[in-house]
Amino acid sequence: MAKIEHVSPLAPASFPELPIVKGVSFAAVEAGVKYAGRKDVMLAVMAPGSSVAGVFTKSATRSAAVLDCQSKVGNDAPSGAAFIVNSGNANAFTGGNGERSVQAVTQAVADCVGVPTSRVFSSSTGVIGEPLPHERITVKLRELREGLSADGIEQAAQAIRTTDTFAKGASKTIDIDGQTVQIAGIAKGSGMIAPDMATMLVYIFTDAKIDRVDLQAFVSELNEVTFNAITVDSDTSTSDTLLVAATGLAGVKVTPESKAFKSALHDVMLDLAHQVVRDGEGATKFVEVRVSGAKSPADARIHASAIANSPLVKTAIAGEDPNWGRIVMAIGKSGAAADRDKLSIRFGEILVAENGWVAPSYNEDDGATYMKNQGIVLHVDLGLGDSSDTMWTCDLTHGYITINADYRS
Amino acid sequence: MAKIEHVSPLAPASFPELPIVKGVSFAAVEAGVKYAGRKDVMLAVMAPGSSVAGVFTKSATRSAAVLDCQSKVGNDAPSGAAFIVNSGNANAFTGGNGERSVQAVTQAVADCVGVPTSRVFSSSTGVIGEPLPHERITVKLRELREGLSADGIEQAAQAIRTTDTFAKGASKTIDIDGQTVQIAGIAKGSGMIAPDMATMLVYIFTDAKIDRVDLQAFVSELNEVTFNAITVDSDTSTSDTLLVAATGLAGVKVTPESKAFKSALHDVMLDLAHQVVRDGEGATKFVEVRVSGAKSPADARIHASAIANSPLVKTAIAGEDPNWGRIVMAIGKSGAAADRDKLSIRFGEILVAENGWVAPSYNEDDGATYMKNQGIVLHVDLGLGDSSDTMWTCDLTHGYITINADYRS
Repeated sequence: MAKIEHVSPLAPASFPELPIVKGVSFAAVEAGVKYAGRKDVMLAVMAPGSSVAGVFTKSATRSAAVLDCQSKVGNDAPSGAAFIVNSGNANAFTGGNGERSVQAVTQAVADCVGVPTSRVFSSSTGVIGEPLPHERITVKLRELREGLSADGIEQAAQAIRTTDTFAKGASKTIDIDGQTVQIAGIAKGSGMIAPDMATMLVYIFTDAKIDRVDLQAFVSELNEVTFNAITVDSDTSTSDTLLVAATGLAGVKVTPESKAFKSALHDVMLDLAHQVVRDGEGATKFVEVRVSGAKSPADARIHASAIANSPLVKTAIAGEDPNWGRIVMAIGKSGAAADRDKLSIRFGEILVAENGWVAPSYNEDDGATYMKNQGIVLHVDLGLGDSSDTMWTCDLTHGYITINADYRS
Repeated sequence: MAKIEHVSPLAPASFPELPIVKGVSFAAVEAGVKYAGRKDVMLAVMAPGSSVAGVFTKSATRSAAVLDCQSKVGNDAPSGAAFIVNSGNANAFTGGNGERSVQAVTQAVADCVGVPTSRVFSSSTGVIGEPLPHERITVKLRELREGLSADGIEQAAQAIRTTDTFAKGASKTIDIDGQTVQIAGIAKGSGMIAPDMATMLVYIFTDAKIDRVDLQAFVSELNEVTFNAITVDSDTSTSDTLLVAATGLAGVKVTPESKAFKSALHDVMLDLAHQVVRDGEGATKFVEVRVSGAKSPADARIHASAIANSPLVKTAIAGEDPNWGRIVMAIGKSGAAADRDKLSIRFGEILVAENGWVAPSYNEDDGATYMKNQGIVLHVDLGLGDSSDTMWTCDLTHGYITINADYRS
């Protein structure tokens, strides 16, 4: 495996201080699934009565663990629940062996921590096409159980890393009806090294009490504007998993109408999503793509996605080149409605193009100076309607090629 | 502008010997539209009675010249016809000025060579967002007319280059009813340098006699399996243009049933399309993506496109890494029907994966050796139906980043 020598220049200064979430405990161990000398398996155990919601990759070649999670996430149960995650091996495209490994791991976790197998959710991330040596995980379960601790979330975040250059965490504390509610989450992604795959794994925990169906509705809706609104290279993992558990031990019930909870959950999800982009392979710039004035929300997303995924736009940003022509190109190719003579383009606050041509007020030197920023906002107004959308991406650099082409496992 | 120092390693040894096509003459001049010291405008004039057909970019931000060509290509006329093409300036996203320039150039060509304006087709390729100094072209028309020559096609191919590392030409000679019919074509693409855009321009000439409607039907159908089946980086130009002219002077009529003509036209189009891929930015490998066993032709194309456009697949090829997991990923994300456990993957003749896992016969060393070839065939059989598709692409290398990010205009 390639060594990732450097932390992303877009990384936060340090792992954040995350609060205790009542009813959740964490442990991490060195199981040697593939990596040596580092923790590579994490276990999270949630109190009885916890609700679990999730969203997963839509890939047609999704992994055995994802399929298993999907079959379980719609169930209510009075019992506790557990998340078990290993790094180093994705257990993807491993045929019938893959399912047997998921069954073995989830069954062993259920037995060890005293919850039904139907409430044990597993994920695997790392190399694909190799059988998961699942006994290396199951043999460590007792040690994991003994290590469970309410403040072990940072260890868990470290254990799920593959080629991430930093561990990712985010939290929000809110007050609902005079009670303090915590939301804390961890994520991994999106470093990849041949023959590994980009996998985004996200686990979020709250001590709010919320019905599973309501939690799922929040998560599904917010996922569209957070994790589904980021892209590093347009490629989609076979293993992407987002799981959210609500233990209910904060003593306050959240309803579908709770704007405070929804807003806080949104902030945690967006923070983690941005951290994934900030760890994008070879990234040197964090890019926000805003589209407004679209005919429909779907059109706005299509345009934003075309811009955020365009190799020509992303290489121009890498080169600090205020190349608005490539944005025009991306809009043109997207397939959604656009009128060349009605659209306008801004770099940050700088009006670059309008009325089908470069803006009279635009000065190329201003554009070039703006592109030297580490954070870039590209704003396109289509002038056709009221719909808007925002996506986040990074630039496309030699670092991406180096990580994905220069090394072999 | 960045200098392209090297000819693509995938380039043919030399420009091919192209036959005279009866009824077509060519000229090229140094007009100094942008480049100095090289020919940058070409004129082709076709005999009276020529049929003209074409296909164009579907971009919503397409250039003024493309819009003008589209409005003209459906007309029949007994007159001659002309193609006028400049490099160095794309006349794209130039507002009302763009239309005025197209009008000025086509009108001047019409006056100069004695054909109606409605039969003059113009293209421009190069920098976008800058007004086209069209008088630099019109002032050269007399010189162009005087230079017209039946054997000037290579000069024409040279004049339409922007950052192409080699001029592109292809031909086919066939016998129909005892008469010799020639088909010869030239193309440019797909080198791009900030802030230029990838533009693919293709001009094909034949002395067959064929009704415009029949010619258009051939061209539209064959375009799908030739130029629409190649991709360098998934970005789409605002100016892509393919024009085909049939002069009728070979003395033989081609009907929609003529398999010989269709096959020859296909071969010329595919040859030129492959040359565009072989000049892909930074390309070091020529890659054929074959998909079979799909549920429908549309599904087969979606899968082929997902593989051919995947940055992870393309960087793996650049790294000579037999990374079949990334192909599984691309199939999974494409959105078209796939069954993880029914698909098989081959590198050339080497069976790599089947039945949802790596093939028992597969040896990683064989895969690694195969990936060292300059030409790579990736073959995916989905095991679901009878539909197939083939696309062509190149690898994604540091060269692509260098060309598109490291330099500024």
